[in-house]
Amino acid sequence: MPDVVSLIRVKRDNERALTDAEIGWLFRAYLAGEIADEQMAALLMAIYFNGLDGPELRAWTGEMIASGERLDLSAIARPTVDKHSTGGVGDKVSLILAPLVASCGAAVPMLSGRGLGHTGGTLDKLESIPGFRVDLGSSQLREALAKVHAVIVAAGPGLAPADRRLYALRDVTGTVESIPLIASSIVSKKIAEGTSALVLDVKTGSGAFMPDPARATRLAATMVALGIEHGVRTRALITRMDTPLGRAVGNALEVEEAVAALQGDGPADLMEVTLALAREMLDLAGLPDADPQAAIASGRAYHAWREMVRAQGGDPDAPLPTASEVLAALPAPRTGYLTRLDALCVGVAAWRLGAGRARKEDSVDYAAGIRLLAKPGDYVQEGQPLVELHAERHGRWADAMEALGEAVTVSSEPPTVAAAVIGRVGERDVERSREPGS
Amino acid sequence: MPDVVSLIRVKRDNERALTDAEIGWLFRAYLAGEIADEQMAALLMAIYFNGLDGPELRAWTGEMIASGERLDLSAIARPTVDKHSTGGVGDKVSLILAPLVASCGAAVPMLSGRGLGHTGGTLDKLESIPGFRVDLGSSQLREALAKVHAVIVAAGPGLAPADRRLYALRDVTGTVESIPLIASSIVSKKIAEGTSALVLDVKTGSGAFMPDPARATRLAATMVALGIEHGVRTRALITRMDTPLGRAVGNALEVEEAVAALQGDGPADLMEVTLALAREMLDLAGLPDADPQAAIASGRAYHAWREMVRAQGGDPDAPLPTASEVLAALPAPRTGYLTRLDALCVGVAAWRLGAGRARKEDSVDYAAGIRLLAKPGDYVQEGQPLVELHAERHGRWADAMEALGEAVTVSSEPPTVAAAVIGRVGERDVERSREPGS
Repeated sequence: MPDVVSLIRVKRDNERALTDAEIGWLFRAYLAGEIADEQMAALLMAIYFNGLDGPELRAWTGEMIASGERLDLSAIARPTVDKHSTGGVGDKVSLILAPLVASCGAAVPMLSGRGLGHTGGTLDKLESIPGFRVDLGSSQLREALAKVHAVIVAAGPGLAPADRRLYALRDVTGTVESIPLIASSIVSKKIAEGTSALVLDVKTGSGAFMPDPARATRLAATMVALGIEHGVRTRALITRMDTPLGRAVGNALEVEEAVAALQGDGPADLMEVTLALAREMLDLAGLPDADPQAAIASGRAYHAWREMVRAQGGDPDAPLPTASEVLAALPAPRTGYLTRLDALCVGVAAWRLGAGRARKEDSVDYAAGIRLLAKPGDYVQEGQPLVELHAERHGRWADAMEALGEAVTVSSEPPTVAAAVIGRVGERDVERSREPGS
Repeated sequence: MPDVVSLIRVKRDNERALTDAEIGWLFRAYLAGEIADEQMAALLMAIYFNGLDGPELRAWTGEMIASGERLDLSAIARPTVDKHSTGGVGDKVSLILAPLVASCGAAVPMLSGRGLGHTGGTLDKLESIPGFRVDLGSSQLREALAKVHAVIVAAGPGLAPADRRLYALRDVTGTVESIPLIASSIVSKKIAEGTSALVLDVKTGSGAFMPDPARATRLAATMVALGIEHGVRTRALITRMDTPLGRAVGNALEVEEAVAALQGDGPADLMEVTLALAREMLDLAGLPDADPQAAIASGRAYHAWREMVRAQGGDPDAPLPTASEVLAALPAPRTGYLTRLDALCVGVAAWRLGAGRARKEDSVDYAAGIRLLAKPGDYVQEGQPLVELHAERHGRWADAMEALGEAVTVSSEPPTVAAAVIGRVGERDVERSREPGS
């Protein structure tokens, strides 16, 4: 039987790779309570420094998947495909993408999460729709998927429970920001949900979890390799998250914008990212000729949204919560071109208005958030308010305004507004990624 | 109030040094249970990788001392001086040194530990003397010290309790082998015991905790600087631990050899180390002209031993435990010069015979151990047994013999038998050591 202190030392000193058998034992012993949290924390920090190489990461992820159930979607007639985003500000792409891709012929079994900190969570957004339920069991999920071809639900406790425990531990021990640990956490949950294909949206820039594009690309390559190794067709797009996606940040505000997008009225940057991801998903699902733009134009995508909302207990026609207080704010400091409207600042401000939570136990304010009255590239007049704050409570203005203090730059020259999709990692790129991550 | 995850990240990313206030908060919060063991373990692993710089280490050690009582030895008329060894095989130096230095005019308040693994512990050795008690309270300690000028006792739970908790955590999380953490652990306990001066015996070589001489020297310099910063006159010797010190390994066997040494009949290497340490201690105690060799020759040192043993409840004339089974073993593989008799192999073999413990809760076999029938440099005949195994149980021979399998080298050329004391770090050397350790 291996001994945990020896294995910690092996990783700490980068002596050699841990074997499949050792990693298997580590997970079994940890889940059985034979390895204490402090021992796993020390190992995670050693992994933070020394990484996990390709075979170690494959085994590590395999153990996370094997720690729980793996959904069987083999009875679903359509090809299954899902998307995962590493999270951003105003990122309501999932809400559009699931019904859109379903309306093009695939089935989308999307297991999603809640927001924490300055990035919102898809489940919180959906729950702002009166009646919408995200806690479907696996048989209800299969039923809804067979019927309306798109579901967005919370991952049940039975999926990759080892990841749940490890993530909670990483969260309190400063070991979150490790590429192999992030990759194994994301990919294990997606594989456990039973999808046959997966497209990853890895965000980079000020509002992203991984601001550095090189590191974001490395994470993308690591996850694509890992998905493929576990039998899931996987690709990734690297997308910009320097400014919020679209014009709405906050739960109900984002649902409203997603619905507009499904009806053909989405902001350009949001549509660029959404359509690029939709095309990758449809291609992986064996539907390379499907046309997501046409699906929106024809109303099929919006119809699929209504079906999905109804299948999960929601009323697509019910009015969304609106804020009792709305305040135009953040006057442009001068006349000129808005060249920067920082995603992190806006995300933090929306969070402080009540749209996000600081701790898992906190509740969110569905109506709270921020509407952008201008986007980078727009010509603005001095004094013109650049945002609209939505909140239930007056007291929150000051905190939100403080977060927005350094959010904007206005220049006399127009910015070069760059494409939102800045990179792609496909099946052929992954051979290069079989290097140790760290 | 600082936040522990942020502080872990600061250390993990080597952003900047932790401040005195942050380190103070870390200790208070950890001891109050507000920081969990898994968080402290992650921080310790980050410290393993990124070290603690001089001011961080001073603050860290200060918090360990402040976590408990600091003995007040100001009522002791004689100058107080202690020695600490990082541990070796056959290292019975403390047993000789305490009465020897006391017999030369100093007072030695020695707080010592038990053995773990292949290195023996001074307290276990002393407890092989019938009646000897190591658990004196602080007033008994002061009384004995005033009367016989030398005591060797267990550190009570009130001294540096933070070190006790941290050491237990490091032990199970693979974070023991960090120079700043080792240094703070050793120095905090020695400072808490109230000594005015301290000599460190930092062992290096196969049987030492720190086999690499460069690392041992770095540890020595770190500890000397730390002691001085906390107001204790401190020096260190670096001594060789490639082969056991003297000819006896095991509790009662080592007491017997220590008594012989105090009577003027000690092996050369043991006496070299003991006298070198005694001279440093006496010099630091302001007794540079004291002559430890004369103290042994005159019988004063042995008299001080008998006084110390009696003051701690022991009978210096009682027979020591002897093993029921003694076996001459390890025949010389050829005729020639014994050039290597490995300390680690002998230490592990003695441990397996019952002289040491695998876990803190285990008891030790006082009579078990190994007597060396030859030392490196001796000319040996093929087939001549090189060691004598002492045990209470037959069953242990095989395990001990296995540990000794690769222990010896016999060559046709005599070895250059090097000096046992190979380095020294004095007050003047420490300025160079004010660098980050790791």
